[in-house]
Amino acid sequence: MAWTLGKLAELVNGQVKGDESVAIDSVATLADAVKGQISFLTSTKYKPFLATTQASAVIIAAEDETPANLLIVENPHAAYAKVAQELYPRTVIDPGIHPTATVHDSCTIHESAHIGPNVVVEENVIIDERVSIGANSFIGRESHIGKETLIYPLVTLYHETVIGMRCIIHSNVVIGADGFGFAFDNGVWLKIPQVGKAVIGNDVEIGACSTIDRGAIGDTVIGDGVKLDNQIQIAHNVQVGDQSVIAAQSGIAGSTKIGKHFMIGGHVAVSGHLEITDNVVVTGKSTVTKSIKEPGSYSSTIPVEPSNKWRRYVGRFKRLESLSKRVAKCEEILKDKD
Amino acid sequence: MAWTLGKLAELVNGQVKGDESVAIDSVATLADAVKGQISFLTSTKYKPFLATTQASAVIIAAEDETPANLLIVENPHAAYAKVAQELYPRTVIDPGIHPTATVHDSCTIHESAHIGPNVVVEENVIIDERVSIGANSFIGRESHIGKETLIYPLVTLYHETVIGMRCIIHSNVVIGADGFGFAFDNGVWLKIPQVGKAVIGNDVEIGACSTIDRGAIGDTVIGDGVKLDNQIQIAHNVQVGDQSVIAAQSGIAGSTKIGKHFMIGGHVAVSGHLEITDNVVVTGKSTVTKSIKEPGSYSSTIPVEPSNKWRRYVGRFKRLESLSKRVAKCEEILKDKD
Amino acid sequence: MAWTLGKLAELVNGQVKGDESVAIDSVATLADAVKGQISFLTSTKYKPFLATTQASAVIIAAEDETPANLLIVENPHAAYAKVAQELYPRTVIDPGIHPTATVHDSCTIHESAHIGPNVVVEENVIIDERVSIGANSFIGRESHIGKETLIYPLVTLYHETVIGMRCIIHSNVVIGADGFGFAFDNGVWLKIPQVGKAVIGNDVEIGACSTIDRGAIGDTVIGDGVKLDNQIQIAHNVQVGDQSVIAAQSGIAGSTKIGKHFMIGGHVAVSGHLEITDNVVVTGKSTVTKSIKEPGSYSSTIPVEPSNKWRRYVGRFKRLESLSKRVAKCEEILKDKD
Repeated sequence: MAWTLGKLAELVNGQVKGDESVAIDSVATLADAVKGQISFLTSTKYKPFLATTQASAVIIAAEDETPANLLIVENPHAAYAKVAQELYPRTVIDPGIHPTATVHDSCTIHESAHIGPNVVVEENVIIDERVSIGANSFIGRESHIGKETLIYPLVTLYHETVIGMRCIIHSNVVIGADGFGFAFDNGVWLKIPQVGKAVIGNDVEIGACSTIDRGAIGDTVIGDGVKLDNQIQIAHNVQVGDQSVIAAQSGIAGSTKIGKHFMIGGHVAVSGHLEITDNVVVTGKSTVTKSIKEPGSYSSTIPVEPSNKWRRYVGRFKRLESLSKRVAKCEEILKDKD
Repeated sequence: MAWTLGKLAELVNGQVKGDESVAIDSVATLADAVKGQISFLTSTKYKPFLATTQASAVIIAAEDETPANLLIVENPHAAYAKVAQELYPRTVIDPGIHPTATVHDSCTIHESAHIGPNVVVEENVIIDERVSIGANSFIGRESHIGKETLIYPLVTLYHETVIGMRCIIHSNVVIGADGFGFAFDNGVWLKIPQVGKAVIGNDVEIGACSTIDRGAIGDTVIGDGVKLDNQIQIAHNVQVGDQSVIAAQSGIAGSTKIGKHFMIGGHVAVSGHLEITDNVVVTGKSTVTKSIKEPGSYSSTIPVEPSNKWRRYVGRFKRLESLSKRVAKCEEILKDKD
Repeated sequence: MAWTLGKLAELVNGQVKGDESVAIDSVATLADAVKGQISFLTSTKYKPFLATTQASAVIIAAEDETPANLLIVENPHAAYAKVAQELYPRTVIDPGIHPTATVHDSCTIHESAHIGPNVVVEENVIIDERVSIGANSFIGRESHIGKETLIYPLVTLYHETVIGMRCIIHSNVVIGADGFGFAFDNGVWLKIPQVGKAVIGNDVEIGACSTIDRGAIGDTVIGDGVKLDNQIQIAHNVQVGDQSVIAAQSGIAGSTKIGKHFMIGGHVAVSGHLEITDNVVVTGKSTVTKSIKEPGSYSSTIPVEPSNKWRRYVGRFKRLESLSKRVAKCEEILKDKD
């Protein structure tokens, strides 16, 4: 679909400097763009490419030297998102149930919904307008999927899962599996039935191979607008506040309640039964073992050093107690000498 | 299914204080319970709810002030597990092979087993009594699944996998894939065929998206009663001892032998070729790089601090060697001064 | 398939000491081998088994005391790989499209390829000679799979994915899902369409439940001969150089460019937008937050200690600033005393 730069400017409420009538049909980086493409500048790192870009237009926060036409906006990143969404609309879904799907008679499937090949839908599932369910997915009994939600192939929703509207769920996600609950009894672990469910808000995106367990008693709840990257683990009865963003391979242990606008890097572990207030940031690879009451940024990230240097650091670290005693002894002597 | 409190007391060998005839049909937390529900108290954290709970009964270790009837037992957590198992029995499985399943003629499928829609079962697989295999799963040739094992949808078992009795395997688990074995030869990596298999004991539960590789030579072995959370990685030729419990996103590298009752938190990494004795606990996010010969608790967990404070810590850590030298110099001077 | 030791020696360009005519049909460890089996010695750890092994032959770097026949080669590990590949050839694939597969008419499927049960192949996919696609997999539109690539069951390739020749892709891998790209706008996260694709080189192996995202703009690229273990996360626009090896549960964040022969342990996190030169090694559980310009080994791994000891270490670590001040004070006094 081709747009003019002027039309895109209207869309994002921006100002054009240059030719409003130039046609734009796709996006590219400043370095790679050719005629007909629009690019953007959000980081000074890429500014050197501005002078030589072949892009027909650049989304930018302020006027600058470039052969390209400019689309000047307050928030170029957000404007780029909106422009790209228009230039790359979602594939139109094909309404109807594929003949190879196995859908129970008791289900309520909206006629505008798409149920792909080999999808299995159990009893009493409700699927709303324009939902798309990718091939080979499984939707457990009593689940409800809100309108315009897009489920990619090979997704598994256990029974009673609730998914909001306009969500995007990537392949191999598992929602509503049993939480990790066992009681120790005479040397063996007894399973504690997980009788809650998983409830996902509106406008949530869940990355490939992520797992969100059902509640043990009561529900696991993911708030509106939450974005989970790939391979995220959300344990039973966790609550994640609205608009939180969690990067890949992080996990939240059971019953932890997380506020709004939580932002964490990759490989972060958050212990169970904590409360995290709104607007907390945790840097990648950190470990949260206590509740956080103050907004702000938290870390326990340790960056690499050359291995031989690192081994000495760790050696010193493990001898800190002895070093501390040596300092105390120096202090003692000095005190005596005073 | 409705039970009386008296009947549940018999089940868990407990004492009722109050009305034995009260009907119980479900479980809930102390805070949320209503009439007809049973709750439990295992943590003093929730004791405040005892005085006001609307639960018809509470499982508890000793008499206490509450309007609810009491079910007094030695181990309330275990008693709760048993009660909940009765109140929420497993869904009865529907014996038979779904018409959309693809099952090789050479297989031995017990007539009481359930094979769901689109399940693919290769040559010479043996499936025992009351096994249930969820939709869209794949069972490789020569595998054997023991009785009453429950396999959720979209599970993959590679060829020759052996699963014990009464196991629960959650969606998107992969068992028996090739271990990570390569030999470096003139600048390229040669694949080492992985010719062992994966053997899972009885009463094992495996969380969603976990991966257990087959052995390189000889087998990967998961002991009886082991519970693995979601996204666990077990490499080739690992042995995990009976009744071990591994929390989410932890991994065990190749050929490590782990004793019984191993308990580890989430995001733990255990190196390859180690031996871990029985009754070892490792706290979340720790790294085990050497064999452990003594039972007990081990850690290398570092909890977060505010990021600006943390950066100073790391700076100090990396200057430890210089600090140590400064202390040595002080000692030297003080020695001279003696 | 039975081989003679002499024939195997020709294959790996080795010298036999002993009986060239001995028949070999399988592999085993030195400890477990019986007549007809070949074993190997690559680590002194297993040397004690050499004197008593029942193996018919042992692949080894130099003559040694053993009742077994010897196959002497320069690189026993590589020779073992080659021998095992011959003794355990890949299962011959069954050409043709399974009747339960759903393949779009517009696809080009080579007649020697195997498309398993319930596989779904969308529009305009090209599948080359002797490709095998396992049951219940999904291949998105416009994808291309190079010859002799082996795809295990339940793999998902999103649209436009390119896979090279002779790759092995294990179950539940997801390639080409959307990268994690959002722009913050007035309190909510806007999705940035991910319009690049994922391109996998030749001879790549990808472990179970790994995820490789498509590019945001431009492509995510995995070089030739790369080996990824299970549960690896490769974010959008990452480039991984040829012959790199990444152990389980590690992740590379967006737009990072990694050189050739990168080798990392398990649970490693690499931040986004970095450049890592060729021949870098990173030990398990480490965190890379800055670009690496020098080849060599890097670490931030901290091994466990008994938990009570560890708690003291962390306490000392967090009091390092105060310790440092105390040392400065000693120095000050000593300076005064000079």
